[in-house]
Amino acid sequence: MPIDGNMAELSAVLLRDSCSCPYCVHESTKQRLFSTADIPANVHAREITIDTTSNSVYIKWENDAPGYGSDHQTTLSMGALRNLTQSGRAPGLHKDSLPVPILWTQEPLNLPDYDYGTYMKDDHALYQLINQLSTEGLAFVTNVPGREESLATIATRIGPVKDTFYGHTWDVRTVPAAINAAYTSHDLGFHTDLLYFQCPPHVQLLHCIQSASSGGASVFADGYKAAVDLFHTDMDAFDALASIPVNYHYNHPDSNVYHTTKPVIDLKPLSIGDKKINWGPPFLAPFSNHEDPVELGRGNGAVLSTLNEKVDRWHSAAVKFNALLQRPEYLYERKMKPGECVLFDNTRTLHSRRAFDMADVGKPRWLRGTYVDKDPYLSRLRVLQNRFG
Amino acid sequence: MPIDGNMAELSAVLLRDSCSCPYCVHESTKQRLFSTADIPANVHAREITIDTTSNSVYIKWENDAPGYGSDHQTTLSMGALRNLTQSGRAPGLHKDSLPVPILWTQEPLNLPDYDYGTYMKDDHALYQLINQLSTEGLAFVTNVPGREESLATIATRIGPVKDTFYGHTWDVRTVPAAINAAYTSHDLGFHTDLLYFQCPPHVQLLHCIQSASSGGASVFADGYKAAVDLFHTDMDAFDALASIPVNYHYNHPDSNVYHTTKPVIDLKPLSIGDKKINWGPPFLAPFSNHEDPVELGRGNGAVLSTLNEKVDRWHSAAVKFNALLQRPEYLYERKMKPGECVLFDNTRTLHSRRAFDMADVGKPRWLRGTYVDKDPYLSRLRVLQNRFG
Repeated sequence: MPIDGNMAELSAVLLRDSCSCPYCVHESTKQRLFSTADIPANVHAREITIDTTSNSVYIKWENDAPGYGSDHQTTLSMGALRNLTQSGRAPGLHKDSLPVPILWTQEPLNLPDYDYGTYMKDDHALYQLINQLSTEGLAFVTNVPGREESLATIATRIGPVKDTFYGHTWDVRTVPAAINAAYTSHDLGFHTDLLYFQCPPHVQLLHCIQSASSGGASVFADGYKAAVDLFHTDMDAFDALASIPVNYHYNHPDSNVYHTTKPVIDLKPLSIGDKKINWGPPFLAPFSNHEDPVELGRGNGAVLSTLNEKVDRWHSAAVKFNALLQRPEYLYERKMKPGECVLFDNTRTLHSRRAFDMADVGKPRWLRGTYVDKDPYLSRLRVLQNRFG
Repeated sequence: MPIDGNMAELSAVLLRDSCSCPYCVHESTKQRLFSTADIPANVHAREITIDTTSNSVYIKWENDAPGYGSDHQTTLSMGALRNLTQSGRAPGLHKDSLPVPILWTQEPLNLPDYDYGTYMKDDHALYQLINQLSTEGLAFVTNVPGREESLATIATRIGPVKDTFYGHTWDVRTVPAAINAAYTSHDLGFHTDLLYFQCPPHVQLLHCIQSASSGGASVFADGYKAAVDLFHTDMDAFDALASIPVNYHYNHPDSNVYHTTKPVIDLKPLSIGDKKINWGPPFLAPFSNHEDPVELGRGNGAVLSTLNEKVDRWHSAAVKFNALLQRPEYLYERKMKPGECVLFDNTRTLHSRRAFDMADVGKPRWLRGTYVDKDPYLSRLRVLQNRFG
């Protein structure tokens, strides 16, 4: 087929598959009305008409899919065909242009607060907040009514709440218990939530109902920044965290048993996808080999030496990553007040909190949290990009 | 360290990391109270005591993690250490022994019906049903009350409902419209739901509220069986479907824009995970290259020839896979009656329905559906295995 004066060889199956006429793609549901597998392998163009006025190509088919008559005609624009030959993308394929993450610097993050009332009714404010979750990974809504359902109203502006065994929403009310106080400071480090899920939530929301009278500030770190800096300063450590899978678990045998295996720096969390940071010391499960023990050669010590080497290499890299995470000049700290709600990218922005006043038992710090999955988050972002982007 | 008379070299970090004393793993939350990254690289055993009576090893540490005193002692059983050296799995790691899928044969599936009342109150019946979803990928509940909330009660016995833009639950009421009738038969082929999600639901439930007076039977096919048979009959076609990513989309620019890219036979849907079948002709998006166009050499025709070859190879394999799916002798067909609910593994068992009587407009076929994610499904299965397995 001639495209811009050059002859281009195009698979007939590919062209037939690209048809978006009303008999091939339902006009309201946008679903395909044929199956690619029903296109005969010997399909070919019976008649090709090039209309230079509309810059379109009309194709009629020989050996078309079952149910299509000889009058079935496929229309393709020259622009779509040019794009096909140049980019290898067939006509009608949506191309994402998602906002690029901006790494945190030593300059304080400049995060505008979003007023609850505006956020709830103004789609442009919603777009800005969702965009900010993609670029900075962190956003705050203020003036949130102190009602139980307020948090879910913020979440569902983005997408359906992800219900988990913690509940549709859940309450974080830390009542310090003296017997464990010596150790409670240990488990407040930076972490990703629900690492022990195969599909952890993308957005986490925390609505402050009541704050501690002293201390208890929320602290956030940019996991991407730490990963990028590790890449530049210690390639081997970066490679260790990106390639060695480690185990996570939530192991309550009578009620909930979740476990997963993934690297800390997940460059391809799905076969094709973007990157994720998986960091959650409290839920790290015991180490194990992920190589086949038969291949390693059972009995000759290779099983154990492989594990020893892996653990030591991972540990050394994790120490470095952790040190990069903790750098005070890159942290974002905010003592949330009642009526404020934070939203953050759970797969990038790691969260933690400062110790708080243990005398506060009567009126403890109280946050309510919930989650939204990545699929609806991305959909909402794309729809708003179509309107405002 | 001597294990069964042989000296085994064990990483000190690995052993220290394995400690499950009450100062290291919280007794009720089971969370770790230390971070692996806080273990100094120069940690080592100060004192090792082997107790042959209890078959245990006690270790005290030099250069322990911050906050641990010199009296901190790690106890490891000889059994756990033996397992560590043999299997490369550190003490305390949960080992899955999930039921193995049983491929469908030409013999009719022998699926017991589960009575709603029994399923709702008897955990052993729940265990059997969940187990059957893992082995056969399909199960039916009968005597379901015709109430709106009945479906969700069945789902939440397994795990929280996965809410999507279709709703918490959704209604399938096909009202035939003459203008499209010629084409409606095209989009009833076997398919996976929500392929255009990065994380499609694992379990799909469909509750029959009202059935068509004639036709409208539900038909199911075993995607695993088709994949395994393709592997044995045409290795190249299997390889094409397992290695060529294709695009899926749900593209309604004003409301919902979802798209993903994955192979039909997904051998590793997550970096480490089990297999999934992704088959959904109506939501297949236009093809594209997934190789870097710069690497392919823009302009010399490689972009297009790569795409042409890929599409033709994939198409040829998809035709074969589709033919294996359609084999009547391997299908499971059942005309669901009001009060019946089917549950199936959405990532294995493909579903479809027979054409139904178009005169039925006044009293149409009506199903109500919902989904449950894989993470809670697996957790419930593991917990019930602990009780009944």
